[in-house]
Amino acid sequence: MTDKTTAYQRLETQFHDICVLEDTIRILHWDQAAIMPPGGAVARAEQLSRLEVMRHEKLTASGLADDLAAVSAANLDAWQAANLREMRRIHDKAVAVPADLVAAHSRACSLCEVAWRQARQDDDFSAIVEPLGGLLDLTRAIGTARGEALDCSLYDALLRDYEPGASSSHIDPLFDDLAAFLPDFLDDVLTRQDAAGAPLSPEGPFPAEAQRALCRRMAETVGLDFDTARVDESAHPFSSGVPEDSRITVRYNEDDFGEALMAVLHESGHAMYERGRPEDWRYQPVGRARGMVLHESQSLLLEMQACRTPEFYHWATPALRDAFDGDGPAWTRDNLLRWATRVERGFIRVDADEVTYPAHVILRYRLEKAMLDGALALPDLPVAWNDGMKDLLGVVPPDDRLGCLQDIHWYAGAWGYFPTYTLGALAAAQLFQAATAADPEILLSIRHGDFDPLMRWLRQHVHGHGSCHPTDDLIRQTTGAPLAADAFKAHLRRRYLNG
Amino acid sequence: MTDKTTAYQRLETQFHDICVLEDTIRILHWDQAAIMPPGGAVARAEQLSRLEVMRHEKLTASGLADDLAAVSAANLDAWQAANLREMRRIHDKAVAVPADLVAAHSRACSLCEVAWRQARQDDDFSAIVEPLGGLLDLTRAIGTARGEALDCSLYDALLRDYEPGASSSHIDPLFDDLAAFLPDFLDDVLTRQDAAGAPLSPEGPFPAEAQRALCRRMAETVGLDFDTARVDESAHPFSSGVPEDSRITVRYNEDDFGEALMAVLHESGHAMYERGRPEDWRYQPVGRARGMVLHESQSLLLEMQACRTPEFYHWATPALRDAFDGDGPAWTRDNLLRWATRVERGFIRVDADEVTYPAHVILRYRLEKAMLDGALALPDLPVAWNDGMKDLLGVVPPDDRLGCLQDIHWYAGAWGYFPTYTLGALAAAQLFQAATAADPEILLSIRHGDFDPLMRWLRQHVHGHGSCHPTDDLIRQTTGAPLAADAFKAHLRRRYLNG
Repeated sequence: MTDKTTAYQRLETQFHDICVLEDTIRILHWDQAAIMPPGGAVARAEQLSRLEVMRHEKLTASGLADDLAAVSAANLDAWQAANLREMRRIHDKAVAVPADLVAAHSRACSLCEVAWRQARQDDDFSAIVEPLGGLLDLTRAIGTARGEALDCSLYDALLRDYEPGASSSHIDPLFDDLAAFLPDFLDDVLTRQDAAGAPLSPEGPFPAEAQRALCRRMAETVGLDFDTARVDESAHPFSSGVPEDSRITVRYNEDDFGEALMAVLHESGHAMYERGRPEDWRYQPVGRARGMVLHESQSLLLEMQACRTPEFYHWATPALRDAFDGDGPAWTRDNLLRWATRVERGFIRVDADEVTYPAHVILRYRLEKAMLDGALALPDLPVAWNDGMKDLLGVVPPDDRLGCLQDIHWYAGAWGYFPTYTLGALAAAQLFQAATAADPEILLSIRHGDFDPLMRWLRQHVHGHGSCHPTDDLIRQTTGAPLAADAFKAHLRRRYLNG
Repeated sequence: MTDKTTAYQRLETQFHDICVLEDTIRILHWDQAAIMPPGGAVARAEQLSRLEVMRHEKLTASGLADDLAAVSAANLDAWQAANLREMRRIHDKAVAVPADLVAAHSRACSLCEVAWRQARQDDDFSAIVEPLGGLLDLTRAIGTARGEALDCSLYDALLRDYEPGASSSHIDPLFDDLAAFLPDFLDDVLTRQDAAGAPLSPEGPFPAEAQRALCRRMAETVGLDFDTARVDESAHPFSSGVPEDSRITVRYNEDDFGEALMAVLHESGHAMYERGRPEDWRYQPVGRARGMVLHESQSLLLEMQACRTPEFYHWATPALRDAFDGDGPAWTRDNLLRWATRVERGFIRVDADEVTYPAHVILRYRLEKAMLDGALALPDLPVAWNDGMKDLLGVVPPDDRLGCLQDIHWYAGAWGYFPTYTLGALAAAQLFQAATAADPEILLSIRHGDFDPLMRWLRQHVHGHGSCHPTDDLIRQTTGAPLAADAFKAHLRRRYLNG
């Protein structure tokens, strides 16, 4: 074998290639979800599957394992040591799963996602049971293999695909805390809201073209640069692409511009996190996104924390009036802010307000654990979904499109993903509290549509660290406390009960 | 070693992967040219370069060479033997070029293409000299390496990247024949055209939205299915994607709908060729497109042969009137056909009529050979271009945007590509002559906008053969004669002098 420095350098070269492959996969995924004609589904599944296998082959090549074994962190600087830790984590996860399982899973994801689009359109859950069943079996096989290798449960192994180090044993008490807090809190908020009278809804129609222009303006205001980004449309808004080429999508509801407005702020938060990491670290594991909890914290910090404040509506009210020639009592700053922070029991997670959102996530968290461990059979999902909605939110969706067919995640293979939304919401509240306490300029600037002080703080304290620190460490260092529900609950009380 | 059948099967598996990689490269190229934000250029160059290198690594792996050496065509059926011949051709081409040269060339192509977009917009040839010079050096290095391995000239080695088996020694007499025929013929056509009086130009503006709908209708009429295709916009119309997911682009000139109309017919011809090959052969070399001569013959057969006939305008005239609310003397069938077949000396290749087009190609053929062998220095290209235009067509472009910056090819690394346009035009004339002679139903059906008989004939005689036969053999089998200029010249005489 060669000396240790060389082994580390070889690892950097190998992981550079792996990162580039991941980037191509992201672009092809974006294309599939945003613009691909439906007939391309089988060929795209083939492409993505082969790329996943090539990535897997590179990660599991014997030379890479030898180099990982040969390098000692003692000979590396702190950044290199963090990079090596990430390399090992990614490698260990990959070697746990055989290549043919990776290929079969990737193909099943692509095909099930396409079948879901049709089933959702037709409101026909029965049509998706078979492809979803096949995908679930493969997901379980992957979770089992990884769980054995990483010495954790099947579910935790899946969770860690999205959030390294996460575990049910940490999530359960946080979610129990929220589940205990929210029902009474929701009652209080709705009572107070009813007493104050409903805000006026701005009257549409709001033409897609005007919404498109507004979304562009909003994205630019928070920091997106259209030389390095696109905003397109898809059934389910999402963020993909690469840091220099962000691909975010929204959907335009001509009766309610709020959907696209909040989606573009949310997805821009994701894109800014991608863009804000150090360029020099671009193609190394330590330079990649830490995980979905921090990622989601960045989208929610914009969408829910910064952009539903009185300060934001000070600037946004004239912008919204301009966009739609809005005039009259529905278009006052006070009414628009009340409209943007109205709370209601609804069916759709992506349209949910921040008070009811955790209930949607807790439902999915419970259901996916039950499906994975076999306690809930797939054909029974619609009934279990509706029962859960009744228990947690007091409403029952009239059909599966508004119920268990609404989200892409399970149908695209993302099991264990949902908890990161609510963990991200908690992190967003905790980070925004820390940011605004540290720099009063942040909120003052947002009053004038200037997000630079906020983005500067986020780059310094969050984006710029890449994957150097585990999420919990980063949050503790930055906010002085471990991730908890306190800041989130304080935020909700302040916004909805003391407002 | 294992037995021969197994070696062949291993080869099929390997080449399947290679074909899938090529498909992903095609989608990423489409994205780059059609929709990518400019800031993504460097990252995309990195992605494409790594994918090219992975393709190259697979093609040059020692196991693959061993299997190619071990298999004997005697043990294979005719289809497998043709597939093996294609595998060997592709392999021999690849092993001639070292991987680092492939990577450097791919990166240089992506970056030079992006620089060209800016230089063209700014009409600043000097800005592109440096990136183009770097790309030319790498192109020359590749051509030299391949020429040595394949025992042909540097230029023929580049040509064969687009058309297997092509050589200057076949092209020169064909082009000399045309160069001798066309100048006098062009004079005769222009004299006759002047005597008849200019056709009336339909008066715009023609809104992009209406052109978009027309292009969709035209594409569907010739056989494209929008479940497996997209039509988008780009500066230079092109066709890419994969058979089940065609990606064609056009550009909308609001003063002249003819540009987009002819572009969509042209690019649809390419897409139909991709779509028309056997699905079972999809991921094997023998199932891929034969080469750019046949590819271009299929686009020109639609654009120039079938869709500038009186029969086509019988159906298309009311369609065009509908699209733009056209009315009056410019919108008669006779005038529209005369307008679609007007001939003039112009600057732009893609807008050229079929009479002057070969002159544009002959110019580029001569210039690229001169640049490759060093007889023409890059900074002298604009002057040489303008001199050549004067000699061949009698006009001099007023700026480089209308001159040597107009085409993407050289700037994207496609040296040796241009001759295939005119070879394709000759093949299109020869094939259309054979098709309409064999089945009179073809033209009768086009009168009613029914392209099924034509497409059936093309699938049977051209598309369905994939790469089973060399282009020359296929044309000889299908038309009874080797590829020559006779049918093309007869076609021009019939359309422009006996009309």
